[in-house]
Amino acid sequence: MNAFAKEALSCNGFLGGRVRLWQPVKGYRAGVDPVLLAAAVPARPGEAVLELGCGAGQALLCLAARVPDLQLAGVELQPPYAELARCNAAENGQAIEVFEADLSALPEVLKQRQFHHVVANPPYYKPGAHSRARDAGRQVALGEGTPLADWITTAARRLAPKGYLHMIQRTDRLPDMLAACSGGLGSVEVLPLAPRAGRAAELVILRARKGGRAGFRLHAPLILHEGARHERDGDSYQPQIRAVLREGAALPWPV
Amino acid sequence: MNAFAKEALSCNGFLGGRVRLWQPVKGYRAGVDPVLLAAAVPARPGEAVLELGCGAGQALLCLAARVPDLQLAGVELQPPYAELARCNAAENGQAIEVFEADLSALPEVLKQRQFHHVVANPPYYKPGAHSRARDAGRQVALGEGTPLADWITTAARRLAPKGYLHMIQRTDRLPDMLAACSGGLGSVEVLPLAPRAGRAAELVILRARKGGRAGFRLHAPLILHEGARHERDGDSYQPQIRAVLREGAALPWPV
Repeated sequence: MNAFAKEALSCNGFLGGRVRLWQPVKGYRAGVDPVLLAAAVPARPGEAVLELGCGAGQALLCLAARVPDLQLAGVELQPPYAELARCNAAENGQAIEVFEADLSALPEVLKQRQFHHVVANPPYYKPGAHSRARDAGRQVALGEGTPLADWITTAARRLAPKGYLHMIQRTDRLPDMLAACSGGLGSVEVLPLAPRAGRAAELVILRARKGGRAGFRLHAPLILHEGARHERDGDSYQPQIRAVLREGAALPWPV
Repeated sequence: MNAFAKEALSCNGFLGGRVRLWQPVKGYRAGVDPVLLAAAVPARPGEAVLELGCGAGQALLCLAARVPDLQLAGVELQPPYAELARCNAAENGQAIEVFEADLSALPEVLKQRQFHHVVANPPYYKPGAHSRARDAGRQVALGEGTPLADWITTAARRLAPKGYLHMIQRTDRLPDMLAACSGGLGSVEVLPLAPRAGRAAELVILRARKGGRAGFRLHAPLILHEGARHERDGDSYQPQIRAVLREGAALPWPV
C-alpha cells in the first residue's frame, strides 16, 4: 500500500476508535498533540481546511470525525507520509487532497486557493538543539528544516479573510510564534496546555485570525491531568480532556 | 513640601506599614502592582537598582524595605512626582537618586552607569485606547507617550551583564514586550498574575536577563485571590500573596 513495507506499519485507534491511523512502527508516531489541535478548531460543515505538514493525516482525520463535510487538504514534504495520509483518509471514509511539497514552495494550484482554517503541528525542536534521530523520517518530523516563522506566514497567505490558524507548539517557541503573527494575522490567543494544576505548560495552542484586530489574549491554562503529580500510568486525564481524546469532543476553548 | 499642595496629598501605608507613601489625592495613585513588581526582584544587599518611571517611588521603596543597602535610582518624567519620590524616600529613611528625564533621552551621567536590576511598571494603555483622564499627571502615568519597546531597550542598555529586568504590564502587551526583548535581553520568563484559579491573567511580570541565553519560559499563573469568584470586598488574597502585600515577603518565583 505504501513506500513503507506493510509490516513496518501499525494501525492505531484515536477518538475511541472513531479514527484508525496507519503509522510507521519506527518513524515519527503521532501522539495526543494533533488530537488536541484538531479539537481546538471551530470548523463548520462545508468549510475548507488545510494542514501544513499533515504527516499521516492524524489531525485532519480527527477533525473530520467531529465535523462532517469538510474539504480536507494537506501539505506534506515526505512522499511516504503523503501517501500514508491518502491511505488513512480512505481507511476512514474520508478524502484528503495531499500535496507533496515544501511549504515554503507550495504548488501554484494551491497558491490560488484560500482556506477557512489552517492547522499545523510543526516540528518541536530547533536544529542542533536535540540529538540526531536514527530514522530519517522521524528526523524531518522532529527537526526543523523550515523556520517556524515560515509556517506561520505560509498559513497566513493561505487563509481566507477572518480565517483561523491553529498551531500547537512548545511553549518556549511562543516568542517566535508571536513575532511571526505580526504580519497579516491578528486576534491572537494562546491556550497553554499544562500537564497538571500549578505546573508550567509545556505546550501551547496558538489561535490567530487573518485580518483579526482584537487584542492579544493569554488564556488560563487548560489542565490535562487530574491530581498534583503522576500517580499511575493509566488514564488520569481531566474529564473534559478525556472527552476530547476518547469521545471526539471539541476542546473547551475559553470565551 | 512639593509642587503638589500639601492638602492635595495623602499618605498611605504599604507592606503592613513598612512603607509610607505620600501620593496626590487626585492624580495617579499606586495600587498593588508596583508592590508585586518589587517583590519579584531577586536583589541582594549592595546592588544597584534603577526604576524607569518611578512615580512617587513606591516600587523602589517596597524593594528597599525587603532588601537592605540597595543603591536606588529612578527616572521620572514629571517633576512633581520626581520631587515626591525624593520626599517619600526621606520619609522612609532611604535615598533615591531621582533623575527628571524622558527615558528616551537619559542624562549623560546616567548613560555612563550600569545597574544590577532595572524595574518598570510602564503605562498600561495605548494612546487612543482609553478615554482621556481628567488629571494631566494621571494622563501621563496611564497613557503612553513612550512606546513600550523603548522602555525595554532603555532598560537593556542600563543593565550590567547578567542583570535582571523586571516589568509588570497588561497581558495583552505581551507580544510587544517579547518582541522588544529580542535585542540584548534573553532568558525571558513570564509569570502571569491571575485574579483567581481558572481565570485569565490580566497582568504579567516579565523577567529578562542581559545577555541571557536560556529558552523562553511561561510559568504557571500565580493566583492572587482565593476562591472561584469575588465574594466580599475584604482581603481574599492567597496566603503567599498576602505575605507579599502585608508582610513584605518576596514573591514566590517559580524555579
